[in-house]
Amino acid sequence: MLQKNRDLDLVICGSIALDSVQTPFGRVGDALGGSATYSSLAAAHFISPALVSIVGHDFPKRYLRLLKQRKIGLEGLLVQGKTFRWEGLYEFDMNEAKTLKTKLNCLETFKPCIPDSYTKTKFLFLANMDPSVQGAVAKKCPDAFVILDTMNFYIQNKKAELVRTVKLVDVVILNDAEARELCNEVNLIKAGRQILKMGPKYVVIKKGEHGALLFGEGCYFSAPGYPLEKVKDPTGAGDSFAGAFAGYLASHGQVDEPQIRRAVIYGSAVASFCAEDFSVKNLIKIDKTKIKERYEIFKKIREF
Amino acid sequence: MLQKNRDLDLVICGSIALDSVQTPFGRVGDALGGSATYSSLAAAHFISPALVSIVGHDFPKRYLRLLKQRKIGLEGLLVQGKTFRWEGLYEFDMNEAKTLKTKLNCLETFKPCIPDSYTKTKFLFLANMDPSVQGAVAKKCPDAFVILDTMNFYIQNKKAELVRTVKLVDVVILNDAEARELCNEVNLIKAGRQILKMGPKYVVIKKGEHGALLFGEGCYFSAPGYPLEKVKDPTGAGDSFAGAFAGYLASHGQVDEPQIRRAVIYGSAVASFCAEDFSVKNLIKIDKTKIKERYEIFKKIREF
Repeated sequence: MLQKNRDLDLVICGSIALDSVQTPFGRVGDALGGSATYSSLAAAHFISPALVSIVGHDFPKRYLRLLKQRKIGLEGLLVQGKTFRWEGLYEFDMNEAKTLKTKLNCLETFKPCIPDSYTKTKFLFLANMDPSVQGAVAKKCPDAFVILDTMNFYIQNKKAELVRTVKLVDVVILNDAEARELCNEVNLIKAGRQILKMGPKYVVIKKGEHGALLFGEGCYFSAPGYPLEKVKDPTGAGDSFAGAFAGYLASHGQVDEPQIRRAVIYGSAVASFCAEDFSVKNLIKIDKTKIKERYEIFKKIREF
Repeated sequence: MLQKNRDLDLVICGSIALDSVQTPFGRVGDALGGSATYSSLAAAHFISPALVSIVGHDFPKRYLRLLKQRKIGLEGLLVQGKTFRWEGLYEFDMNEAKTLKTKLNCLETFKPCIPDSYTKTKFLFLANMDPSVQGAVAKKCPDAFVILDTMNFYIQNKKAELVRTVKLVDVVILNDAEARELCNEVNLIKAGRQILKMGPKYVVIKKGEHGALLFGEGCYFSAPGYPLEKVKDPTGAGDSFAGAFAGYLASHGQVDEPQIRRAVIYGSAVASFCAEDFSVKNLIKIDKTKIKERYEIFKKIREF
């Protein structure tokens, strides 16, 4: 059971998927995936988040049990039709997933059902999803500090909706290629500052192995990448980054620049664990001590 | 005139060129260029380096005056035939130069002439050059702490010679694509550690906008990139990095991990200035105060 005062701290809205993924290091079929899954499992290391999402009647019970065990609130989880499925392939350079098949299924007509108590959440993380849906959810949580993640598909196909939604949120998280594409600007520093002008208080640009950049008014932070030698499956690393980022901030309540910088490092640490194994395997194996150890390594590797 | 005790501290061996470069922000013709030029002008902000290189009889006197004004020792400068010329083009993304024309001229048969007093130098920087030539010079300076820079051309065409030369040196500097190519390894962390196993004490991988990585035994350092919004011409930025790195180390004499980390930051700072204008324009405009200012910005942007 969630404690009553906890489920108001962080609500995460996004997708839950069954992923079939192949990388040079192996493959998994119908593994637990989706933006809300990765991000809520990552956030759960800092706080008990509440989930707003949808699965099908075919969704394995053991995955539901796993989410419950991690103290993730499931009152906002709809069950309809068949679960969203994604099939992807990473080639040798592991840079970008090649999508082999997408079956949206129940996600296609997903209208988030937000329990009344959730609308008073202090923090809301809008994981990767249709920007119109993200915007509608943001409006239902008027007091929340809102963090938004997005992806190339929505930049290419729903740019106007995305820009409208970006105006409503406090933090935008996206990767380097997405930032360049959204702004039609090669220079990442310029792109970050342009997105800042669209409305949010902070912009985080994830750069994979190269770390992450944080932009705010009068604020610029460059986080190193974690020196990972073993990347087995990058799926969900970005979602884990954002989930840990949101979870860390929500667990502290207040948001200022030093906290946001630390949140970027915690996000990077958890994302690095995620990439070291398939699906959510490593996300549920690690604990606070291991995350803190990586946080300390991040301090050492950038010291001069 | 160089002070007698100064010209033994840092010797730089490499090319001097007349560059014709076009970028989206303008063009220059027969501008001062070459690996030894950029690196010695960068090093000259920290120490008076001595140059070992070659130019043709057509080399403009004003460029020689410029080098002398910066207190760069020219006793090891040969004058033969015509000056090495390079023509390059940077397209919109400014990532990599497209070579339009190379005329090696006097560089083709260049045998470095090293004044006796130079062979006792404490630091030797082997700028981008044929690895056989670099190896011969390294052997002539047996007591020197040797820093080597290289490029994709030699990795592709003279890999065996390069690997032999790498064994002789203390620091290898190369960029991310070159490190991946030299090791046939996508993962930069693995590549850095592989190069370390070839013999040097330290390996520096330059990542352009993403900063630089330093590898040593039990040492790993990740330097952020400087947040540059205005890149006019990246030519020589890598040489400037290496020159400032070598100049900073030579000016302090002793080499330990904290100093090497600082040298990477000073290298990054000077390289960032270089890229902000064509040819060596900005390298000769800046001073120690401006470099130190950027060094302090590097401290602030990575703090958490």
